Amino acid sequence: MKGYGAIQKWVEEIRSGNRRKIAQAISCLECRSPEGDELQKAIYPHTGNAFLVGVTGAPGAGKSTLVDQLVRHLRKRKQRVGVLAVDPTSPFTGGALLGDRVRMGSHALDPDVFIRSMGTRGNLGGLARATREAARVLDVAGYDVVFVETVGVGQSEIDIMHMTDSVALVLTPGSGDAVQVFKAGIMEAADVFVVNKSDRSGSGKLVRDIEELLHLSKNEADWIPSIVQTEGRTGRGTDQFWAELEQHRYFMQETGGWGERRRSHLRREVQVIIEDRLRYLLGKQVNRADFQRDLDLVQSRKLSPHRMAAKWLSELVREEGGGRS
Amino acid sequence: MKGYGAIQKWVEEIRSGNRRKIAQAISCLECRSPEGDELQKAIYPHTGNAFLVGVTGAPGAGKSTLVDQLVRHLRKRKQRVGVLAVDPTSPFTGGALLGDRVRMGSHALDPDVFIRSMGTRGNLGGLARATREAARVLDVAGYDVVFVETVGVGQSEIDIMHMTDSVALVLTPGSGDAVQVFKAGIMEAADVFVVNKSDRSGSGKLVRDIEELLHLSKNEADWIPSIVQTEGRTGRGTDQFWAELEQHRYFMQETGGWGERRRSHLRREVQVIIEDRLRYLLGKQVNRADFQRDLDLVQSRKLSPHRMAAKWLSELVREEGGGRS
Repeated sequence: MKGYGAIQKWVEEIRSGNRRKIAQAISCLECRSPEGDELQKAIYPHTGNAFLVGVTGAPGAGKSTLVDQLVRHLRKRKQRVGVLAVDPTSPFTGGALLGDRVRMGSHALDPDVFIRSMGTRGNLGGLARATREAARVLDVAGYDVVFVETVGVGQSEIDIMHMTDSVALVLTPGSGDAVQVFKAGIMEAADVFVVNKSDRSGSGKLVRDIEELLHLSKNEADWIPSIVQTEGRTGRGTDQFWAELEQHRYFMQETGGWGERRRSHLRREVQVIIEDRLRYLLGKQVNRADFQRDLDLVQSRKLSPHRMAAKWLSELVREEGGGRS
Repeated sequence: MKGYGAIQKWVEEIRSGNRRKIAQAISCLECRSPEGDELQKAIYPHTGNAFLVGVTGAPGAGKSTLVDQLVRHLRKRKQRVGVLAVDPTSPFTGGALLGDRVRMGSHALDPDVFIRSMGTRGNLGGLARATREAARVLDVAGYDVVFVETVGVGQSEIDIMHMTDSVALVLTPGSGDAVQVFKAGIMEAADVFVVNKSDRSGSGKLVRDIEELLHLSKNEADWIPSIVQTEGRTGRGTDQFWAELEQHRYFMQETGGWGERRRSHLRREVQVIIEDRLRYLLGKQVNRADFQRDLDLVQSRKLSPHRMAAKWLSELVREEGGGRS
């Protein structure tokens, strides 16, 4: 394991934009090695500068193409951009996906764009953590904007809402998406609605559906989510999409919602770390012979599940207390 | 709060089949009062005799009618029967549902049938716990068979699989149920498949679909789930349905799977009690001023989320340790 000095050197290399060291750092944080633990503590003080934007939506909604257009748009304005493409259905990681190789290609020679695929490695909970840490690495490396793009399926969508400053939800006309989205309660978390493939028929209707549903549900004091129409293929609407994201950022910064949201994300992160640790300790208990013996007693009705739980909670507390003092 | 003697007297009243005391006990356990905690510890040693049968399936599949037919069938055989009708979508409880009043009616004069509705009271996690404890009360009260009937929606279905000895899954022809069920991974937990409303067209096809999917997925050493065709309305197939449940019970008891399954349920219960307690303690921390002050430090990057988590985990352990010693 690297010593303190080596970790600090690594952090400096990341801060200077060394791509190989950035890629290494992300891999290291994904694997959850002891080095990764040291690294994440060392980079944290330098984070908080990047604008983190979540982009979600159903498969086939055109998220990748839209993000590509945003990258192009931001590069014209000399912004440095990171992209984390999260695929909870893929065990692959590190740009191994064909789609991302193609994408990498279009920015391959640009040192100010960093694109990375994040896969599960078989652990969905770990994916959210790894993605959050990867975003921090890009933040520290001086990328001004980091897009976290994920397929809109269940937990991964919720996770990205808990790690980004703004969330864009990409819908397409005629896909029957709108009602689904509103049912799933995802609407409350979307800051910008994007009606992509807006050259298709039904685009106007989708906009009106969204407007109506927003009208029914939003609090007046809050940010009223904007709706933009885009064509990922041609790039039409990209300027407005970005303008709305910036508008949301300014609104949040002026009203204090920005800091509140970041604080709430951090609070949740702290709690999840504690819960994960406790779950790990609980998992270890189950395999112990004395746990199994107590379970024998419960099964033979000599001990109640409630008493056994109280006893093993004390045991967990005693060991965790001892291990740390 | 009642003293030890009063709790023991209550347990004796439950064991003697006093319906008013049984109903009171279930309510008391639902509310999670200190009395309820004492009571659940006091009844536990007397549990483990009833055959707990879970019945699940989509809304409208005819679960209630089928269970009613089973109750009739068992009453002819002089068995005492309990029914817990779990409705995770309802905040009502205690037989307040119209459907259950009607059902109660048909067995109202029979002291050997006990039917009870279980609603959420706004707390889904608590519903599983309350249902498990209610089943134990009926077990202690000497009911030979306790049906736990729930609408097949997500968590409530999974919960019932974790508290019953046998699980019956009710499907209906032409509802497109089969594929849904197999997708959701519920099949692995079903011990008996019931094709209800089997007078409808498509019944044979549904049976063949289930057979085929079972053939693809089951381990040979295991119990091979049986498939029965029923007509809840006329009662046709009820005898066979019950015969299959008993068959499953005998198979499990002979192969040791019965005890293993009960043990695995108890282990899970112990862990859930510990996790709930820890979650409660974590929830309390967040509201403390010093927790919020640390969160300020995290937000200003003077403390990392990981260090803060480690500190508050120690704090939680210290307090829980102190509180119990």
